[in-house]
Amino acid sequence: MNQAFQPFTPQARTLMGPGPSDVHPRVLKALGQTTIGHLDPQFVQLMDHVKTGLQYALKTQNPLTMAISAPGSAGMEACFVNLIEPGDKVIVCQNGVFGGRMRENVLRCGGQAIMIEDPWGQPTDIQKVADALQQHPDAKALAFVHAETSTGVRNDAKALCALAKQFDCLTIVDAVTSLGGIELAVDDWQIDALYSGTQKCLSCVPGLSPVTFSQAAIDTIKQRKHPVQSWFLDMDLVMGYWGEGAKRAYHHTAPVNSIYALHESLCILHEEGLENAWQRHQTLHNALKQGLEGLGLSLLVDEQYRLPQLNSVVIPDGVDDALVRSRLLNEFNLEIGAGLGALAGKIWRIGLMGYACRQDNIDYCLDALGKVLNR
Amino acid sequence: MNQAFQPFTPQARTLMGPGPSDVHPRVLKALGQTTIGHLDPQFVQLMDHVKTGLQYALKTQNPLTMAISAPGSAGMEACFVNLIEPGDKVIVCQNGVFGGRMRENVLRCGGQAIMIEDPWGQPTDIQKVADALQQHPDAKALAFVHAETSTGVRNDAKALCALAKQFDCLTIVDAVTSLGGIELAVDDWQIDALYSGTQKCLSCVPGLSPVTFSQAAIDTIKQRKHPVQSWFLDMDLVMGYWGEGAKRAYHHTAPVNSIYALHESLCILHEEGLENAWQRHQTLHNALKQGLEGLGLSLLVDEQYRLPQLNSVVIPDGVDDALVRSRLLNEFNLEIGAGLGALAGKIWRIGLMGYACRQDNIDYCLDALGKVLNR
Repeated sequence: MNQAFQPFTPQARTLMGPGPSDVHPRVLKALGQTTIGHLDPQFVQLMDHVKTGLQYALKTQNPLTMAISAPGSAGMEACFVNLIEPGDKVIVCQNGVFGGRMRENVLRCGGQAIMIEDPWGQPTDIQKVADALQQHPDAKALAFVHAETSTGVRNDAKALCALAKQFDCLTIVDAVTSLGGIELAVDDWQIDALYSGTQKCLSCVPGLSPVTFSQAAIDTIKQRKHPVQSWFLDMDLVMGYWGEGAKRAYHHTAPVNSIYALHESLCILHEEGLENAWQRHQTLHNALKQGLEGLGLSLLVDEQYRLPQLNSVVIPDGVDDALVRSRLLNEFNLEIGAGLGALAGKIWRIGLMGYACRQDNIDYCLDALGKVLNR
Repeated sequence: MNQAFQPFTPQARTLMGPGPSDVHPRVLKALGQTTIGHLDPQFVQLMDHVKTGLQYALKTQNPLTMAISAPGSAGMEACFVNLIEPGDKVIVCQNGVFGGRMRENVLRCGGQAIMIEDPWGQPTDIQKVADALQQHPDAKALAFVHAETSTGVRNDAKALCALAKQFDCLTIVDAVTSLGGIELAVDDWQIDALYSGTQKCLSCVPGLSPVTFSQAAIDTIKQRKHPVQSWFLDMDLVMGYWGEGAKRAYHHTAPVNSIYALHESLCILHEEGLENAWQRHQTLHNALKQGLEGLGLSLLVDEQYRLPQLNSVVIPDGVDDALVRSRLLNEFNLEIGAGLGALAGKIWRIGLMGYACRQDNIDYCLDALGKVLNR
């Protein structure tokens, strides 16, 4: 019993796994500031600033842009429970863990999921999606993952959305790992509903999920025949809380300090410039790749659709996956990620996200890997 | 645009509203510590410690005791979506805002809500509940709010649970404002599902919802005929993440830093002693009450079922509610709460919760109120 009530002081780590990634020191400082009320005029104004910051990061003018008060999985659920009603058909692309989770969400909304499956490590095949849209003209939405954190693959969000729009289909996009790390343009690409996370390329603490909804998405929500099955995630109610000006109907108590942190991370992104941040991820990915090749290691995913911020490294034959990761953690305080599902034991996932995406981190990681692998 | 990207430094407030309440400085310090991975062995151990701490605070041995990674409204939803299936009948007691929210949850689960309504400011009438249980022997659960934050009323949780058990009914209890402030004994009272919040008498930041489920509740979940409508709140999946030892199946990314904060707040509660904390709330409530009476102000709720941690003060005739609150905030940096719903404009809600429940806060509040009211 007593051990449970000892003060907890975490041993610092270098976070180069699939997330959370290293949190910027300025973000931690903002996080620990004095808590104010969630209806305090100061906080209401901060919510407006966070909205502006998210609109900047997402390249959108959508008024319905905000942070859900819960992690990315809840953001995913917010998109599905608001847009999908019983009987609705959704085309879901799966080429990793998170497409499967989208399917689960469709089913739990009483919807029908038309699955487009591609091998893990490969991108979604656009032709297969075109065929499915042709075959299911009544599909309400196309759902896919922009940056598949479980494999390191970039799906072609721009092309997938353009295709969906030809068929008058709503688009639901998982941008948990893409936001802030690679090009993403909600309005230009005509994304209707998008959710992300704070603990990846925004260098913020985990626990919030930025979301945005287009006018078409809002119209769809307003025309629902059934109430949204989640009270907590009902955007019609959440809108009243995050909405314009004086309205601010009490819905739930926002995680005030986490919003401080998100705001600071958006300030940092704005200072660097969104396009510069994308470029930094690409440039440093190239540096990491060269270093890994120097150690005789190769990447799983083809360059053409490889994510710079999530590097799937093929584990060489005869190397003990778990032992390497545990030595990196225990001897170097360095966290890298394991493979998931079909890729468990076959890859490591090295994240280069946000503040963790720095040359000194790359040098440190390559040095540690070299020592542990005796290369 | 540019204003949105200016650093945010909150003006400190004294938080004596309905929550969030003043956060303990040690909790803020814990919150701002370096972020580690949510699967890091250090963090996995911390989750165990938080579970132990919550078991202590809730007086329960329930193994399924944890913090939902979202605010109290999500904790409420977690209780309902896991236990209630389409067609289930739930007796819901309403004598304030939060009973109404429970009803919403029942309906969104496809259940039927049998409402027991009592006036705001009065406790739930036990006889009416007994009659309803008699009349609806097929009711699956009795749901009620222990401490009604919107009115300052304590419902008799012990008696309500004992009654429900006579009719073999599950009990679902809202303990958002009661946990840490007044007597609460999950096992002794035979509570089956309970949710709380961190931003009230635990003096922690908002954003997490402690929950606990009895064995009977777990059995009910395991015997469900329909999948839980929420993926994020599906306890069967969440159990795998918060469960014993090595399992720890990846479900979502826990809000790591908020868990640091919750742990520290549980350490502080344990240092003081749970019963001592209850006593402090009662003693200081008496001090506040005396002071308010000295200013000619009276409390809405009868002493017999009045909450010490949430004091509903009747606004005297001719006093401008909004002006008083805004002067307290702007001139004294003191936040007190407005009335909600039927009590809007009729009461102020003065919170004495957790770290905010101190003699110096009471003195400060009485002094400020006296000045603003010219008394």
